[in-house]
Amino acid sequence: MTMNRLEQQMAFILEVDQLKNVERQTLIVDGTRRENSAEHSWHIALMALLLAEHADHPDQLNLLKVVKMLLVHDIIEIDAGDVFAYAQDDEREEREEKAARRLFGLLPRDQAEELHKLWREFEERSTPEARYAASLDRLLPLVQNYLTGGYTWVKYHIPEEKVRKRNQVIRESSQALWQYAQSIIDQARKKGYLER
Amino acid sequence: MTMNRLEQQMAFILEVDQLKNVERQTLIVDGTRRENSAEHSWHIALMALLLAEHADHPDQLNLLKVVKMLLVHDIIEIDAGDVFAYAQDDEREEREEKAARRLFGLLPRDQAEELHKLWREFEERSTPEARYAASLDRLLPLVQNYLTGGYTWVKYHIPEEKVRKRNQVIRESSQALWQYAQSIIDQARKKGYLER
Repeated sequence: MTMNRLEQQMAFILEVDQLKNVERQTLIVDGTRRENSAEHSWHIALMALLLAEHADHPDQLNLLKVVKMLLVHDIIEIDAGDVFAYAQDDEREEREEKAARRLFGLLPRDQAEELHKLWREFEERSTPEARYAASLDRLLPLVQNYLTGGYTWVKYHIPEEKVRKRNQVIRESSQALWQYAQSIIDQARKKGYLER
Repeated sequence: MTMNRLEQQMAFILEVDQLKNVERQTLIVDGTRRENSAEHSWHIALMALLLAEHADHPDQLNLLKVVKMLLVHDIIEIDAGDVFAYAQDDEREEREEKAARRLFGLLPRDQAEELHKLWREFEERSTPEARYAASLDRLLPLVQNYLTGGYTWVKYHIPEEKVRKRNQVIRESSQALWQYAQSIIDQARKKGYLER
């Protein structure tokens, strides 16, 4: 039996329910548990809508595209797992590409291609939308970490230098958000959350 | 000290992290735990992007508005709590309006007004976008319930009649999705998940 478009779309929608079980390293703001990738995706998509004015060139941003990208950007983790920001992992790219093919491949071909392309664009930061989306994907966990006593930084002994370097991605899309991010890193250093 | 726009926006973004702790009645698809309202919001926003073609008048839909609405639609639950679909609750409206004023009120005024208006529009189903968004907010939990052995229907002895009535909202925006929803209810009845 061939599935019609709605059946294919629903198969994908129900498969990605599993993103609710993918745990990230970051804690939710009250510090009670680790965050999952589905709720994280909700959070930065909402953030993208509210902070667009702070991008260096807000007029260049197709906000619907940004939001789509953010709702989709972590779906590959269902098969490939969440990779910790400061981890070394040489086979990551291959594993993620395979995950993207299987998961997006559940959709009708036109939508599969659109989402796969959007995900690659996000990963490569090849457009203003992707750079803005990626900057929020850095900024929110940075603030969450700061508010939970530097949780992952302390746990994995991350030096300030590495945090600053990783978050420079923010500078690619917004001077205002980069300035804000730096002030958070400064405060984190003062509180002793970061190794020298 | 007055907060600048970015500080106000971040205060809101961090406050709404609490939506990750608002539990719904519905289970996630693997049946292991209750779903929270943040991950639910991610899921139906993504669904809205993928199923728009099935709305009766897809050309009437501003998809960015639909997605915004869905990312925002449950935020008031942080103060007002999640109300079970089949519960009677006379003070609900007042409690939710108060919650909306406090929570959206954390934002700069223009954004506070925009989000408050969007939320009301969703609640009132007064536009094609709101009706489409509301139909997904019915359809996804319906399918989730079906896939988890009729979990909330069985638990609260919900009769088929009530489920059909509640989900008629879907018919306001899409005959195709309403047909699909009915087929799910038919199967649920056959499996004995619904009271007569």
